[in-house]
Amino acid sequence: MKKVVLAYSGGLDTSIIAKWLQDTYSCEVVTFTADIGQGEEVEPARLKAEAMGIKEIYIEDLREEFARDFVFPMFRANAIYEGEYLLGTSIARPLISKRLVEIAKEVGADAISHGATGKGNDQVRFELNAYAINSEIQIIAPWREWDLSSRESLMDYAEKHNIEVDYKKQSKKSPYSMDANLLHISYEGDLLEDPWQEAEDEMWRWTVSPENAPDKPEYIELTYEKGDITAINGSPMSPAKVMETLNQLAGAHGIGRLDIVENRFVGMKSRGCYETPAGTIMLKAHRAIESLTLDREAAHLKDELMPKYAKLIYNGFWFAPEREMMQAAIDASQENVSGVVRVKLYKGNTSVVGRKSDNSLFSEKIATFEDDGGAYNQKDAEGFIKLNALRLRLKSLQ
Amino acid sequence: MKKVVLAYSGGLDTSIIAKWLQDTYSCEVVTFTADIGQGEEVEPARLKAEAMGIKEIYIEDLREEFARDFVFPMFRANAIYEGEYLLGTSIARPLISKRLVEIAKEVGADAISHGATGKGNDQVRFELNAYAINSEIQIIAPWREWDLSSRESLMDYAEKHNIEVDYKKQSKKSPYSMDANLLHISYEGDLLEDPWQEAEDEMWRWTVSPENAPDKPEYIELTYEKGDITAINGSPMSPAKVMETLNQLAGAHGIGRLDIVENRFVGMKSRGCYETPAGTIMLKAHRAIESLTLDREAAHLKDELMPKYAKLIYNGFWFAPEREMMQAAIDASQENVSGVVRVKLYKGNTSVVGRKSDNSLFSEKIATFEDDGGAYNQKDAEGFIKLNALRLRLKSLQ
Amino acid sequence: MKKVVLAYSGGLDTSIIAKWLQDTYSCEVVTFTADIGQGEEVEPARLKAEAMGIKEIYIEDLREEFARDFVFPMFRANAIYEGEYLLGTSIARPLISKRLVEIAKEVGADAISHGATGKGNDQVRFELNAYAINSEIQIIAPWREWDLSSRESLMDYAEKHNIEVDYKKQSKKSPYSMDANLLHISYEGDLLEDPWQEAEDEMWRWTVSPENAPDKPEYIELTYEKGDITAINGSPMSPAKVMETLNQLAGAHGIGRLDIVENRFVGMKSRGCYETPAGTIMLKAHRAIESLTLDREAAHLKDELMPKYAKLIYNGFWFAPEREMMQAAIDASQENVSGVVRVKLYKGNTSVVGRKSDNSLFSEKIATFEDDGGAYNQKDAEGFIKLNALRLRLKSLQ
Amino acid sequence: MKKVVLAYSGGLDTSIIAKWLQDTYSCEVVTFTADIGQGEEVEPARLKAEAMGIKEIYIEDLREEFARDFVFPMFRANAIYEGEYLLGTSIARPLISKRLVEIAKEVGADAISHGATGKGNDQVRFELNAYAINSEIQIIAPWREWDLSSRESLMDYAEKHNIEVDYKKQSKKSPYSMDANLLHISYEGDLLEDPWQEAEDEMWRWTVSPENAPDKPEYIELTYEKGDITAINGSPMSPAKVMETLNQLAGAHGIGRLDIVENRFVGMKSRGCYETPAGTIMLKAHRAIESLTLDREAAHLKDELMPKYAKLIYNGFWFAPEREMMQAAIDASQENVSGVVRVKLYKGNTSVVGRKSDNSLFSEKIATFEDDGGAYNQKDAEGFIKLNALRLRLKSLQ
Repeated sequence: MKKVVLAYSGGLDTSIIAKWLQDTYSCEVVTFTADIGQGEEVEPARLKAEAMGIKEIYIEDLREEFARDFVFPMFRANAIYEGEYLLGTSIARPLISKRLVEIAKEVGADAISHGATGKGNDQVRFELNAYAINSEIQIIAPWREWDLSSRESLMDYAEKHNIEVDYKKQSKKSPYSMDANLLHISYEGDLLEDPWQEAEDEMWRWTVSPENAPDKPEYIELTYEKGDITAINGSPMSPAKVMETLNQLAGAHGIGRLDIVENRFVGMKSRGCYETPAGTIMLKAHRAIESLTLDREAAHLKDELMPKYAKLIYNGFWFAPEREMMQAAIDASQENVSGVVRVKLYKGNTSVVGRKSDNSLFSEKIATFEDDGGAYNQKDAEGFIKLNALRLRLKSLQ
Repeated sequence: MKKVVLAYSGGLDTSIIAKWLQDTYSCEVVTFTADIGQGEEVEPARLKAEAMGIKEIYIEDLREEFARDFVFPMFRANAIYEGEYLLGTSIARPLISKRLVEIAKEVGADAISHGATGKGNDQVRFELNAYAINSEIQIIAPWREWDLSSRESLMDYAEKHNIEVDYKKQSKKSPYSMDANLLHISYEGDLLEDPWQEAEDEMWRWTVSPENAPDKPEYIELTYEKGDITAINGSPMSPAKVMETLNQLAGAHGIGRLDIVENRFVGMKSRGCYETPAGTIMLKAHRAIESLTLDREAAHLKDELMPKYAKLIYNGFWFAPEREMMQAAIDASQENVSGVVRVKLYKGNTSVVGRKSDNSLFSEKIATFEDDGGAYNQKDAEGFIKLNALRLRLKSLQ
Repeated sequence: MKKVVLAYSGGLDTSIIAKWLQDTYSCEVVTFTADIGQGEEVEPARLKAEAMGIKEIYIEDLREEFARDFVFPMFRANAIYEGEYLLGTSIARPLISKRLVEIAKEVGADAISHGATGKGNDQVRFELNAYAINSEIQIIAPWREWDLSSRESLMDYAEKHNIEVDYKKQSKKSPYSMDANLLHISYEGDLLEDPWQEAEDEMWRWTVSPENAPDKPEYIELTYEKGDITAINGSPMSPAKVMETLNQLAGAHGIGRLDIVENRFVGMKSRGCYETPAGTIMLKAHRAIESLTLDREAAHLKDELMPKYAKLIYNGFWFAPEREMMQAAIDASQENVSGVVRVKLYKGNTSVVGRKSDNSLFSEKIATFEDDGGAYNQKDAEGFIKLNALRLRLKSLQ
Repeated sequence: MKKVVLAYSGGLDTSIIAKWLQDTYSCEVVTFTADIGQGEEVEPARLKAEAMGIKEIYIEDLREEFARDFVFPMFRANAIYEGEYLLGTSIARPLISKRLVEIAKEVGADAISHGATGKGNDQVRFELNAYAINSEIQIIAPWREWDLSSRESLMDYAEKHNIEVDYKKQSKKSPYSMDANLLHISYEGDLLEDPWQEAEDEMWRWTVSPENAPDKPEYIELTYEKGDITAINGSPMSPAKVMETLNQLAGAHGIGRLDIVENRFVGMKSRGCYETPAGTIMLKAHRAIESLTLDREAAHLKDELMPKYAKLIYNGFWFAPEREMMQAAIDASQENVSGVVRVKLYKGNTSVVGRKSDNSLFSEKIATFEDDGGAYNQKDAEGFIKLNALRLRLKSLQ
């Protein structure tokens, strides 16, 4: 091992990993730090990396790529894992993997490394996606290798190796394991390890509680083109800007909190809390614009495919051919999914109250309870029912 | 046609149908009126039927059968149609059909009749479910036969045939086409025929608006046994009582409103508004108890089957063999779905905040971020990832 | 109704229909006759049409379009209906519908007409596919309208209207209802209406019986590019030529006979016999080339989608958006499905005996039972199994 | 490790394993040898085990349990893996695992052991199924642990430890890795490792080649009750006897050979040849009896579930809850799958030529091409088509 590209947050854990890699493998370490909307400055990572003698330092703003090429395609599918989870962490990993592998090629590194533990889904996501892009890449997962199994031993290691520990930050540190990006922030561990115990109100960071949200509802209009939001309240916006704007709007109205027990790919159940402000609105609104513009059976096919699609992303198979096949089917359905959705935001509630489209398949003329002037012949229903019933009638005689 | 059993609500429309059947077919009419939790007295239907000379009058309280044998099994499947609709109307039709056909047999009738129009789903549901039980039954759907196509012509018919019209009630009548039972109340037509227009606040009947709901949240605990709720806040209750209790709790907190455009089986899109107070809580809570007690792949199989299961119920195939096959699979999964779910109700929000079970598959020992004493060997993850990656690596070389 | 385009075979039945349309609707009739490989001359239809005073006569050779745009895409999906049927009739109907509607537009006709009965699938396929292309098209299905319910009454009608009946041909006529195109010939009716009775040997037309096939096997090599056969035994061929060649080869070896009871879309079961010589080889060989070149999960996704895909084609939904979505997914998987398959033909058997590809995902180095030099680390299997087992172990304690 | 139960064939490899376990773990070894129809005597294993000082020796005839509780339920599902493979090896492993774990409990053993390598599916099947039954069981897979990586080193080990090697048998030994049971015999390795090379004719053991099969076809009748064969040519038989009889019949007619490249669960492709004589007939015949007695949508649901069901068995998840859920659905469909199927066997071909049942859903009255006396109203088809077309027509205007 000559050179390793490390997914580096600038935090204590990945700083320790950088040092540990240098020591254990006597290799050069290249750091890669990305802004994917986690809400923290990424530039400070440069100084910290330099302090450890890192020479090749990659710091990149990937927010637009993340929103456009990962989050938006996923929302075209109305993806939800296990009926609840909007896949906030899962969808960010393939992008990081992709850049790690690309940078490894650029700098001539033989391996990549990440700070995910051996119990979670993220190691799987990082590694499967990396292997899918480069069969030969080597991957170092320090948490599965080293013997630093407690926070204490980590701090000892940091001290021993002169890694700067911001003790003030450490002591104020949330007791939760967290992950954040444009789509969500997640919380695991500590009190949450008892699934009967309610999450503390101070845990949540991106949304006010519904109780503290404004007493007045707010209405917004989302413009869709081919399945993607392109404007909010009439103002055109880039994908990342759409998400940032919706995060603020939804967060202010207490929208997007979730508390679940989920099934990890590695076989265990875990409890997680999530704030997905923009995503919560995006899912509802996308379904609404589809309800008007998407053919029934196309919509139902999407619904039947969705659980598998969501599972693939959750399990780390974004760059797998079966996900790409499904995406081809999903994208083929979005050609006419354009129009405007009106949404009411109020104390945790996201309510679709109106939807319109030039491509609407809703025909008032046909659907009306009033006289339809022959647009629909009620007599047709008899034959329709009779032939749908035929097999059931034969079976009832069996 | 000698004798026809009519699904009779006691309202004006089905009274006209009763008369029309008597006149058109010169047949005896038997009325069947059921209490399935629609929230209106059913006894008044007796007097009205008698006034029309009906001799065989069936009035039945089917609330427990409806909740126990139809709603509860459906909620074991987490059924949602098109991502939103909880199937409130759909699930009531098969029970009515079943009783119509059974009564027809008891009274020696050759046909049954219902008041559903030729444009909607309900005609299909009534008829498919009836044919599935009795291949030979004849079905009269007056709305598809007669020429009374406007409200005016109906009123004329009523007047001409001395059917009592409560003009006060008619004038106060909601402009919406409505349907209600223990699970929901629905609204269609009138202003709703423009999907861009927001529903009026005075339309909603079973829930307060979130804005008018109490400012203080309420916590409830739901006890599950084998996938069904058997107690609320520790008090054992029958299925119908569970639903009535939850309807009141949820309704008071503004929970369960829905406004959607849906795809009818007969091929058109229609806009509907729904209040499903109990059902909204039941879906969330059932998923929560499953999250703790149901195996991952069993849960995912249920999620993959669900869209088709929901579609079958929506389309009127409750008594079809494929629904029964799916139910067998679903019920087989619920053996250990027992425990307690804690839910917070607040201004339209249903939030699961805790879940516990003697059958929990959540292992804190394994899931913990702290030292797990070897319960889980992180080294296993490497082999797991490597073999999951093997096909992707080979493919990346292709 | 001013002008009607009729799908015209030149046979007695559609000649009667042409006359009946002229008489019943006093409209101009345009005939459309296509060569889709049914093995009969199409030019004679011109004279017959002219004899009835038809002025606009369309006669077209659609064999290449049929093979390239309909049969080949379908075989990329390995489509089989109900585990047996290769969809020979189903896949030809959308092409005919498409041309009928296109011609109607060209000649300014308001309607199209076909000779399918009211009991079968073909009426549904003709009409759904036509409506999917042109919402406003009118469709006349004489068999559902007229009162010519017996062969006798048809002959009377012919005589009365001076439609030439080739009595010799009629008397020699097969007692079976048949349909033929490049992909298959089908037989229904007569003796076959008893599903216990074996088909007579003289019924079959395109294949010799296995008993009469050569005693020596024949080997052929099929070259695939992106999922389609492009050469046989090294000779490049067009899609239709591929099918004609395989029909001859397979037919000579007694390959492709099938005798089944199937479920029609209109609700009844029917018994059909089919000869699908080329198709039988194409299905086997396509699976074989995929077995070498297609990723496992891509292949499994295709297998999961296939029954629904086949059902859509069987039911007449070729031009429906859900079929197009599935096709997008399927086609996306075929990029690397190239190579050569070696097939042995012998007395009814199609046996794949070899397959090779430049895109092969088969790695002898990894798969070998011999020493693999570390290409695969057997230790990885332990972790793989352990984590796959984790949920099962937790469940066994439940 | 005090005591280990070993799946013991009596052959050289598992004899070496027995010795290796004794030496490596200094533990007592219990051998378990089962007759599952592999066609070899199992009693000789006793002497060999005794010679190694084994004290607890289990030798069992599991043929009936295997056929009745594993093979037959699987054939109710028409299970095929990847369109071709009848799962002969896969379905035997869970039974062996179950007995290993049960015996371990009886004799107080802490572990079980098997002779499957670290590259194949069988290790996964043995171990997942064992863990699913007993969470605490320990499993020793010598092939993943020891350093005996070549045949030579195995022979050395045998010699060094006085394990009797029947050199005559070894030298005559097939070059293929084989596995056999009532359902099939499989061949892997050696020449087959080149997927382009045709299998040698002398490899096949259970079937004559089609070329050498009788020149006269043979007809047999299979009686089904609730989805299972209960009699052949009118003679009632137990499940195992059914399979033995069909194996002989089919084998004599050259039926059941298969040569494929398949995708292993561990991520690689491998080439395998299989003889599945009875199974080949059973699959065809079961589909035929279902074609007559099973409702269309029940059949289609089974077809949609099947690929996943087959994959579960292939991957080793027989005792997983999701397989049990699917089995519940499948079994629920078989209530009326009773009747007789007539099959023609001829030189490799299995042709269904007739099927009859008291539960037949085939209605000649309805299906007939002749006058049906009004059993089916052709006019119904118009409404049926019109409403099925409605969404397509609206879409064509989009």
